[in-house]
Amino acid sequence: MIVASERAKRPVDFKPDPVGPPKPTSSCPFCEGNEKITPPEIYAIRKPFSAPNGKDWLVRVVPNKFPALAIEGNIDKRGKGLYDYMRGIGAHEVIIETPQHVSSFAPLTEEQIQHIFQTYQARMADLKKDNRFAYGLIFKNVGDRAGASLEHTHSQLVVTPITPIRILQEMKGSEGFYQYRGRCIFCDIIHQEIEDDERVVINDEHFIAVCPFASRFPFETWILPKQHLTHYEMIPPHLIPALARIAKQVFLKLEKALNNPAYNMLIHTTPFTMDETEYYHWHIEIIPRISRVAGFEWGTGFYINSVPPEDATKYLKEISI
Amino acid sequence: MIVASERAKRPVDFKPDPVGPPKPTSSCPFCEGNEKITPPEIYAIRKPFSAPNGKDWLVRVVPNKFPALAIEGNIDKRGKGLYDYMRGIGAHEVIIETPQHVSSFAPLTEEQIQHIFQTYQARMADLKKDNRFAYGLIFKNVGDRAGASLEHTHSQLVVTPITPIRILQEMKGSEGFYQYRGRCIFCDIIHQEIEDDERVVINDEHFIAVCPFASRFPFETWILPKQHLTHYEMIPPHLIPALARIAKQVFLKLEKALNNPAYNMLIHTTPFTMDETEYYHWHIEIIPRISRVAGFEWGTGFYINSVPPEDATKYLKEISI
Repeated sequence: MIVASERAKRPVDFKPDPVGPPKPTSSCPFCEGNEKITPPEIYAIRKPFSAPNGKDWLVRVVPNKFPALAIEGNIDKRGKGLYDYMRGIGAHEVIIETPQHVSSFAPLTEEQIQHIFQTYQARMADLKKDNRFAYGLIFKNVGDRAGASLEHTHSQLVVTPITPIRILQEMKGSEGFYQYRGRCIFCDIIHQEIEDDERVVINDEHFIAVCPFASRFPFETWILPKQHLTHYEMIPPHLIPALARIAKQVFLKLEKALNNPAYNMLIHTTPFTMDETEYYHWHIEIIPRISRVAGFEWGTGFYINSVPPEDATKYLKEISI
Repeated sequence: MIVASERAKRPVDFKPDPVGPPKPTSSCPFCEGNEKITPPEIYAIRKPFSAPNGKDWLVRVVPNKFPALAIEGNIDKRGKGLYDYMRGIGAHEVIIETPQHVSSFAPLTEEQIQHIFQTYQARMADLKKDNRFAYGLIFKNVGDRAGASLEHTHSQLVVTPITPIRILQEMKGSEGFYQYRGRCIFCDIIHQEIEDDERVVINDEHFIAVCPFASRFPFETWILPKQHLTHYEMIPPHLIPALARIAKQVFLKLEKALNNPAYNMLIHTTPFTMDETEYYHWHIEIIPRISRVAGFEWGTGFYINSVPPEDATKYLKEISI
């Protein structure tokens, strides 16, 4: 558990559910013209000749005002009886994806989505240099049900001093498969999905979007690079436009299919502390939050999915965008 | 993932949030007098001389109308390329906790709560005899936000043909600790919590209620038997009244503190397929659903908790019931 009492003070913690149409307000800290409301920017893609923390930007990155982890200090691991403590050192940044008050990726242009993916890469590469840090997680919460507290479309980057357990488990599973079969399991999944052709939503030159086999959630969708790439921050520049293109298509389809659902998007990538491997492959996971996680899921780690991924795929493929 | 397309047909899947005051209706399938709406009962605690599937019961157990797993058939494990399939064989029962239309445990009498815990035990012991089954999970969802689709207080028992991954991980962790220290980690936690006295909500002769160290969720609370007991279904009869007493106290406190929150309750216990061990200890976990699980938690397996368990404990201890 991470104790982040700061976050309890946030004004908008517990409000009702659906993702409504965006309501731009003069007080939205992420809208153009309101740059003074946020902490000073760490990074930005800006129009020529514009000044930091002023108007005329395309993407802005600022520290989270209510960080889960703080950037200053050392980790200071210690024990007390059975229990282990460490200080919550890390980074927690907010990527403001557009100066316009829209509530998701899908309405943005492909060019704007490229800027966002480039920004993720730049921030990951920069924070990787700090040797206190083990892992960088990029994620996006859309809608209250998915844990978003602000509507204006944004993503977050949390950098942790230890590799998260969820990632360790995934890496270990992939490594086990590699030891047994001598291949990357993600490369194998891509090949089998193309061959089976039951769960492939989009298959283009560089990326594939699938509703993964035995997915946990209805309409869960993954985007994987076809080329074996371990670290998101090492993505070659020529792949960014293709990534933006497939991401926009996937989000347009999901939003049309599910009537603007709340969702989480996550980038799974290799820890900063590890070199390139033969067995792990970065990818994007998108989880629409249309069903509830209840006692059964908490108790077992199994997920009951009322929409098999083959049905979700069929539905998503038929949606014209 | 468990595919349970049957469940998609349920009428009440996606409705709004808070747990309101109970609204008894003549159509509630769990109310006394409406026994014909449910499938025939599997088990019941009844008043003397009452007939099955009629009135005058205290607790009733019926099959879930929309089961996650079906009772008939064999598991039939098979593979297709990378992927593994098995049939969704198991049991999914609903424990109707009272004939009255109330929405939680807390308003019930201690005697009634005893009947419920006895019923859990009887059903676990019965299903354990079927050698297709590996694990029995008892859980309770209260409120829509916690995944409940019916308001009338009830719990569920899901029996699975393989031990759930979440339980395997917990058992493995406990076994590792035992190999290193030679003691049950849960017994150790009980001792350290009593000594530290920072996270103990209730400490009576037979049970302890704590907000566990580094808890994942605000006001997460566990109830543990002080005696080393591995399997819930093996609980000695003389402990049932004490369990009912502490459970009622904990739920009264949580409901008063958090204004009738949605919550999940789970019993963690040793798999049917395992004998008693020195290292695992059954216990109850209660998770109030007052914060959202968002991208950070999905991506890392870490939980950001804005209420440290020491603060939650202090607050719960001060609440008079």
